[in-house]
Amino acid sequence: MTYQAPIREQKFVLETIADIDELSNLPGFGDLSADLVSVIVDEAGKFAEDVWAPLNRVGDEQGAQWNDGTVTLPPGFKEAYGRYVEAGWGSLSAGTEYGGQGLPFVLSLAVQESLTSANLAFSLCPMLTLGAIEAIEAHASEELKQTYLPKVVNGAWAATMNLTEPQAGSDVGALKTKAEPQPDGTYRIKGQKIFITFGEHDLSENIVHLVLARTPGAPAGTKGISLFIVPKFLVNPDGTLGARNDLRCVSIEHKLGIHASPTCVMSYGDNDGCVGYLVGEENTGMRAMFTMMNHARINVGLQGVAIAERAYQGAVAYAKERVQSARLGAARTPVRIIEHADVRRMLLTMKARTEAVRALTYCNAAAVDRGIHAADEETRKAARGLADLLTPLTKSYATDTGVEVASLAIQVFGGMGFIEETGAAQHLRDARITPIYEGTNGIQALDLVGRKLPMDGGAHWQKLFTDIRSFTDTLPGDGAVATLKAPLAEAVSSLEEATHWLVNHANQPDDVAGSATPYQRLFASVVGAYLLARQAVEADRRLGAGEAEADFLNAKVITARFYAEQILPQDVALLGPVTRGADLLYALSEDQFLAA
Amino acid sequence: MTYQAPIREQKFVLETIADIDELSNLPGFGDLSADLVSVIVDEAGKFAEDVWAPLNRVGDEQGAQWNDGTVTLPPGFKEAYGRYVEAGWGSLSAGTEYGGQGLPFVLSLAVQESLTSANLAFSLCPMLTLGAIEAIEAHASEELKQTYLPKVVNGAWAATMNLTEPQAGSDVGALKTKAEPQPDGTYRIKGQKIFITFGEHDLSENIVHLVLARTPGAPAGTKGISLFIVPKFLVNPDGTLGARNDLRCVSIEHKLGIHASPTCVMSYGDNDGCVGYLVGEENTGMRAMFTMMNHARINVGLQGVAIAERAYQGAVAYAKERVQSARLGAARTPVRIIEHADVRRMLLTMKARTEAVRALTYCNAAAVDRGIHAADEETRKAARGLADLLTPLTKSYATDTGVEVASLAIQVFGGMGFIEETGAAQHLRDARITPIYEGTNGIQALDLVGRKLPMDGGAHWQKLFTDIRSFTDTLPGDGAVATLKAPLAEAVSSLEEATHWLVNHANQPDDVAGSATPYQRLFASVVGAYLLARQAVEADRRLGAGEAEADFLNAKVITARFYAEQILPQDVALLGPVTRGADLLYALSEDQFLAA
Repeated sequence: MTYQAPIREQKFVLETIADIDELSNLPGFGDLSADLVSVIVDEAGKFAEDVWAPLNRVGDEQGAQWNDGTVTLPPGFKEAYGRYVEAGWGSLSAGTEYGGQGLPFVLSLAVQESLTSANLAFSLCPMLTLGAIEAIEAHASEELKQTYLPKVVNGAWAATMNLTEPQAGSDVGALKTKAEPQPDGTYRIKGQKIFITFGEHDLSENIVHLVLARTPGAPAGTKGISLFIVPKFLVNPDGTLGARNDLRCVSIEHKLGIHASPTCVMSYGDNDGCVGYLVGEENTGMRAMFTMMNHARINVGLQGVAIAERAYQGAVAYAKERVQSARLGAARTPVRIIEHADVRRMLLTMKARTEAVRALTYCNAAAVDRGIHAADEETRKAARGLADLLTPLTKSYATDTGVEVASLAIQVFGGMGFIEETGAAQHLRDARITPIYEGTNGIQALDLVGRKLPMDGGAHWQKLFTDIRSFTDTLPGDGAVATLKAPLAEAVSSLEEATHWLVNHANQPDDVAGSATPYQRLFASVVGAYLLARQAVEADRRLGAGEAEADFLNAKVITARFYAEQILPQDVALLGPVTRGADLLYALSEDQFLAA
Repeated sequence: MTYQAPIREQKFVLETIADIDELSNLPGFGDLSADLVSVIVDEAGKFAEDVWAPLNRVGDEQGAQWNDGTVTLPPGFKEAYGRYVEAGWGSLSAGTEYGGQGLPFVLSLAVQESLTSANLAFSLCPMLTLGAIEAIEAHASEELKQTYLPKVVNGAWAATMNLTEPQAGSDVGALKTKAEPQPDGTYRIKGQKIFITFGEHDLSENIVHLVLARTPGAPAGTKGISLFIVPKFLVNPDGTLGARNDLRCVSIEHKLGIHASPTCVMSYGDNDGCVGYLVGEENTGMRAMFTMMNHARINVGLQGVAIAERAYQGAVAYAKERVQSARLGAARTPVRIIEHADVRRMLLTMKARTEAVRALTYCNAAAVDRGIHAADEETRKAARGLADLLTPLTKSYATDTGVEVASLAIQVFGGMGFIEETGAAQHLRDARITPIYEGTNGIQALDLVGRKLPMDGGAHWQKLFTDIRSFTDTLPGDGAVATLKAPLAEAVSSLEEATHWLVNHANQPDDVAGSATPYQRLFASVVGAYLLARQAVEADRRLGAGEAEADFLNAKVITARFYAEQILPQDVALLGPVTRGADLLYALSEDQFLAA
C-alpha cells in the first residue's frame, strides 16, 4: 500500500494546536517563517513517501539479520539511511552549536511522523539517536559533546539507549551492570543489556551507546545509577575512529513486529576492556535518563499516531475499491464497501481517533518547546507543567490508538486483512510493541496519577481543566459546532470529578494505582475531544471567512462531532469504574485467578 | 506455555447456564448421566492438554507446507489427528444413525473449547467437518448420507465448506462456480474457491468438499445457489476409495496467524472432470449453508472463548512469577507483578470477559439443543428463537473478546510479550481472524438488527429482556450479590431503550445499519453481565449451603461484580452512540476521508 503524508492535516494541527506562528517568533526560532515550515513538512512528506515507505515491506519480510555479532539490515536500508543523513532530517531540532538546525521540537515531530508512518521499524534508529542527543546536550561535559555530538547530530553515528536488563525492565533501579573507575578517568563497563533497539547494525560508521550502570559503592535503586557513553569504536583525539571497543551484540530477538529494527542483547566487557565515559556526575544517571525518556515517550506516542495514519490510509483505499454486497434496504446492486454505514463507522472511528492523538501529541511537543523558549519564566513553567502532564496521556492514548486503529484496518480489509501480502497485518504487528516500550502504558498511568497530578499542588491540571471549560462555555449555541458543547461539558465535569476522587484518595495508594489506567484513558480522551473541537471551531471560522479548502475544513467539523458523539461517551463512562476503589482488585487470592 | 483445561469452570457453566441436568433428560439424550458429562469434560481436557496443546507452537513456527498441490501439516499433527479420531471426539454430537454419539451440542462445545484452546489452527479441521456433517444430515439424500456420513462422522474423512470466491466474500450470492448436470445424475463442477480452510492436507484419507455452485439458468443471487458434495477421491459402490477427482489445491495463503491451518485456493474442474453430487434440491444451497453457518458461527464464537482462556492462563502464570517494582506507596521491595493493582485490573478484565463469553456461547448452544429436543413445540420454538438471537452476539462478542484478551495478555507480559518464543503473540495473531471469518462481526450486527430482532414480531428479544429484568428484580438488597442489582437494572433499561429506537427506525435502513455494531456490543455485554450474575447467585447459594470449593464459588461472585462494575458501564454508554442516527456517517464525501 502506498503512503501519502497527510501534509494538509499536519500543517493545520501545527497552526491551530501548536500555534506554530507564535512559536516561530520566540527567541531561538528567529529564522522560522511560515513558508519554511510549509516547505519542511512538504519535503519530509515527499522523502518519507519516496525513500522510506517502499522499504517497509521488505523490512518486515527479511528483517534484520544477525551473524556472529554483526547485524545487517535488509537491502535498501543503508542507502535510505544515507539519504536521510544527507538531507539533514535528523538534525532539525538539535542545537545549532553542534550542527543542529535549532528548529522547534513540534516541527521535527511532524517530520518524524511522516518517516514513522513510512517505516516504523526504520524510524527507531533516528528516534533513539535523538534521545541520546538530548541527554548528551543536557548533561555531558563540553569535551564529550565536542567529540560526539557533531557526528551524532548529523547522523553519521547512530546512538542507543541501554536501560533494560533481564531483571530490570519497568524497574530500572534494579539494574546491575557495573562501571569501574580507571586512573585515566574512564570507566570499565561490564554487564548485559537486553531489548536494545538498533544496538548493532550496518547503517552508520559508529554507534554511540548510552549505558546505565552502577559504580562501586553506589546506593541501591535509582539513586545509584550513572550514565556512560560507550562507543562501538573508540574515537581518536583527532576525531577519527580507533579500536573496536569490548562490546558485542550477542543475539537479536525474534519479534511479533518491527522486524527491521534489530532488538539486541548487548554484552559489555566480556574481555574486561569495555571503555565508557561518564556523562555528568556519578549517580545522576536517572536524571539524564528522565530527560531523554520524557521526550522519548512523546516520540513513542507519535508512533501510535503514525501507524494509525498509515493503517487508516490503507483501509480507506481498500474500502473505495472493494465491491461487496448491496446497502441495507437499497436495490440489490453491490456497492464499494465505503458506501456501507458500518464501514463508514469504522473509517470515521479511525480518522477521528487518529486526528485526536495527533493533536494531543503535537500539543504536547509544542508545550515542550514553550517550556524552553517562551519569553518569560512564568509562561515557561506553565508550559513545562502542561508538557509533563500530557506526556503519559500522549504515550498511552496514542499507542493504544495505534493498536486499535491497526486492528480496525484489518477488519475493513476482511479476509484479505489476514493475508500478510496485503500489508494491513504488519501494522498491527508493528504497533503492538508501542504500548509496552518506553514505559508500559500502565507505568504511564502510575506516572500520571502519582507524579503528574500532584505537581505544583495540582496547578497544571487545574489550569488545563479551566481552559477546557472556558472553551466549552464559549461554544456557540447554534451553527455547525454547537453540538460539541453538551458532550464536552459533560466530559470535563466527569474528568474533574474523577480527578478530585483521585486527589482525595492520595493516601490510599491501592485505590490510586488501581484506577490509574481507566483514569488515564478518560483524561486523554477528553483532551483529545477538546483539541478536535478547537480545530473544528477554527475550521468553522475559516469556512465562514470563505477560505479555500472547504472540503478539508468541513471534514474537521464532522470529525470533531463524530468524536464527541460516538467515541467520547464510552471513555466518559469510565468515571464510574475509576471511582469504585481497589477493593475488588484485591478480593481474589492468587490461586483464585485460575479455576482449573 | 502449558495449557490446563478449565474443567471446573466448564462444568459449572454447563450446570448453571446450560442446565445440563435438565437437558440430559430430554428425549434423545436418555443415556446422559451427570457422571458421564463429568467424565467427558475431564477426558477431553486431558486429551487437549496432553496431545494437542504441545503442537501449538510447532504448528505456528512451521505451518502447513504446500508443494505441488499437496499440503503437509507439521510433525506430530497427523498422529494427533489419528488419536482424536480414535478417541471418538469428533462424533460426540452427530446423530447415532451414522455412528455419532448423539450427545448435546453444548457438551460437544465444552469438548471443542479445550481442543481449541490447545490448538486453534488444528481445531479448524474438525470444526469444519462438524459443520459439513450437519448440512449433510439435514439436507442430503439417504444414499449420500450412507456413502459419506459414517466416515465423516468418525473423522476418517475430513470435510470442508467452499463458499468464498474472489468477488464473493460477505456477499455469497455473487459466486460464479458452475455445476453442469450430467446424464448419470451427477454434476460437473467448475470454478475457483478461495479461503478454503483445510481444503487440502495429509491428516485424513479423503476430504469431502461441500461446494456452493450455480446450475445452468439458476436465478441470480442467493436464490440460485446449489450445494454439492465434491470428494477429493471418488467413492466406489463398496465404500472403498476410487479415482482422484478433478480438483486441486492451487496454493495456500501466508497469514498473520493460524499457520497450521492451510487456507487454500481450490480449483475445481481444470480438466472438466470434477464430479459433484447435489445435496437436496437445486437452488436450495443457501438453506443448507445457513444450517451449517449458524452453528459454525457459534463454533467461531467458541474460538474467541478458547483463545481468551489460553491467553489469560499464560498471563496469570507470568504475573505470578515475574518480579518487578514495588507496590505504589509500599516498601521498596519488588513484588511479583500479580500484586500490582494495575496488573490485577488487567487479569480480572481478562477473566471476567472470558467467563462472560463462555457463558454466552454455552447458553447459545444449549438453546440450540432445546430448539431440537425440548418436549413441546412451544418450548422448542422459543429456544430456537433464543438461539438465533444469541448467535450474532456469540460470534461477535466472543471473537472481539478473544482479540482484546489476547492483546491484554501481551501487555501483562510486557517486552517479553512481543518476543515470539514467549507464545503470547501467537494468540493475538491466531485470534485476529475470528472477528472476520464466518461472517464478519459487522455482518453479524446486520444479521442481529435486520433479521433477528424482527423475528416473530420481536417475541424473542422481548422474552429475553423480560427474563433479565425479572432476574434483576429478584436480586436481594443485601449480601454478596446485592451490588449487581443497580448496574444490571440500568443496563437492561439502556438495552431496551436502544432496541426500541432501532425498532422505531426500521424503515430508515441507514440508521439501523449505522448503529448495528455498537448496538450489538451493548446487547452482548448486557447478556454477558446477566449470565455472570446468574452464576454469582448460584455460587452464593452454594456457598450459603456450605458446599465445597468455596474459593471457586467466591471467585464467581467477585468476577460477576467486576464485570458489572468495571466492564459493563462502558458498553452501556453505547446507548447514546446507538441512538444518534446515521447522519454523521454519511456527512463526508468519499474524497474527504483522506486529507492529504
